Amino acid sequence: MIIVQTIKELQEAKRALHGSIGFVPTMGALHQGHLSLIQKARSENDHLIVSIFVNPTQFLEGEDLDAYPRKEEADRKICELAKVDILFMPTIDQMYEHDELSIGAPAIRGYILEGQKRPGHFDGMLQIVMKLLNISGADNAYFGKKDAQQLALVTQMVRNYFMDVNIIPCEIIRDEKGLALSSRNAYMSEEEKVRALCLSRSLKRASKLIISGKRDVEEIKAEMMEVLKEADEVEYVAIVDRTFKPLENVEIGNTMILVAAWVGKPRLIDNLWL
Amino acid sequence: MIIVQTIKELQEAKRALHGSIGFVPTMGALHQGHLSLIQKARSENDHLIVSIFVNPTQFLEGEDLDAYPRKEEADRKICELAKVDILFMPTIDQMYEHDELSIGAPAIRGYILEGQKRPGHFDGMLQIVMKLLNISGADNAYFGKKDAQQLALVTQMVRNYFMDVNIIPCEIIRDEKGLALSSRNAYMSEEEKVRALCLSRSLKRASKLIISGKRDVEEIKAEMMEVLKEADEVEYVAIVDRTFKPLENVEIGNTMILVAAWVGKPRLIDNLWL
Repeated sequence: MIIVQTIKELQEAKRALHGSIGFVPTMGALHQGHLSLIQKARSENDHLIVSIFVNPTQFLEGEDLDAYPRKEEADRKICELAKVDILFMPTIDQMYEHDELSIGAPAIRGYILEGQKRPGHFDGMLQIVMKLLNISGADNAYFGKKDAQQLALVTQMVRNYFMDVNIIPCEIIRDEKGLALSSRNAYMSEEEKVRALCLSRSLKRASKLIISGKRDVEEIKAEMMEVLKEADEVEYVAIVDRTFKPLENVEIGNTMILVAAWVGKPRLIDNLWL
Repeated sequence: MIIVQTIKELQEAKRALHGSIGFVPTMGALHQGHLSLIQKARSENDHLIVSIFVNPTQFLEGEDLDAYPRKEEADRKICELAKVDILFMPTIDQMYEHDELSIGAPAIRGYILEGQKRPGHFDGMLQIVMKLLNISGADNAYFGKKDAQQLALVTQMVRNYFMDVNIIPCEIIRDEKGLALSSRNAYMSEEEKVRALCLSRSLKRASKLIISGKRDVEEIKAEMMEVLKEADEVEYVAIVDRTFKPLENVEIGNTMILVAAWVGKPRLIDNLWL
């Protein structure tokens, strides 16, 4: 594995690659969720690039940029073991200059749910993802379904700007109890981790209701809110179609159920695609 | 020459190309200025793509989008004679979808001079240029120095987003009297075309002053304003360095002198690089 920190080194390292390039952009603090993306990318491409960059422009004022977990040593080992070819760990000045061009998330789709709770977050996310997709020269780039809205917006970006890369959605990875893996889970106490299970349990409840024939979105959401009482604060429960348009009735094959809630320090998200 | 109107047709036509691709994006109404870009691109690349697209997002409310000169028949002939391989003339719905991602010009460099007079213009220009550069798959893309700020911002976009294309600046083309060619010159009467020569004359005056040893920017601008009295309204005279930072004293090798003025219907721009 080659570890590079500058654009120039990355471009040089890439010159040795002939064949398809898989790419997994991350903010580090790698867990089994990231590893599943890396392994999928490894198995589907000739070469594999992983980036670790805690991107400042996607954190809002007052969010956990400085506190965001950093585990450089462990991350390197994980990438090495997963047979990553190039690990790209740039400094901020490699990725940004003064008075930059910005990217604006779509006025509607970019400002609902996560975008409403974190206005500007998706602008910064799309900005760094466009940079990284271009600099990696990836044929295939891997994103988790856990950040469903991020995945939808990155897919739209590639479509809107005719970028020559395939965006590959990857399944949510959960621990044995059902908690969706997240770097921010590290902020929770054991007691909080138990309560955090209410997110995935609320999705299971919804799933059971739908299997039993229920379709009415408001009824399903009300039942989910019952389960979510264990969270400190529920930010939203949403039932939308694949374009993030709110539904009145569940449409099997075109429905996503999304939940965001605070448990202890972290703000957690989870979702289910039906 | 293949004429294509859809993204799909363009992608198919591109598949037959092996070798370097030169690209000239235009809004049509082609004149000798465009032709010089096309000829340069022709001579420096194996293949040549030209686009004609009057991009609505770079026109402000109340600007001349509907009145912008359209000369499809003549444009095709010019491209044919210039040995263009692919002429791309998309419809609006091929280039845009509902609720798009936007591009924001740099907060400082994008909102001075042209950007101050036409706030939002560069956002739309950068948006369509990014789309067109990506879809064309160009190795080299050609832009005129006449739109100096546009050229600087496109160059910055390619740098900021690590786009894999060279931006090639091309010299300003003037008629035999010195008027910088522009599709909007067609809006002027003969009398106005004579008065319009004050723009290039003001630049020549500046040039002579500098050759004679003058460096003080305010003095040079004052002399230019004298010459520009023939215009109906002068919007700005600016003397800046290559990064568009205002100068107090001319620095040979790092100076651009820019002028914008109204003569009759059109708003004209011209500039000189020293």
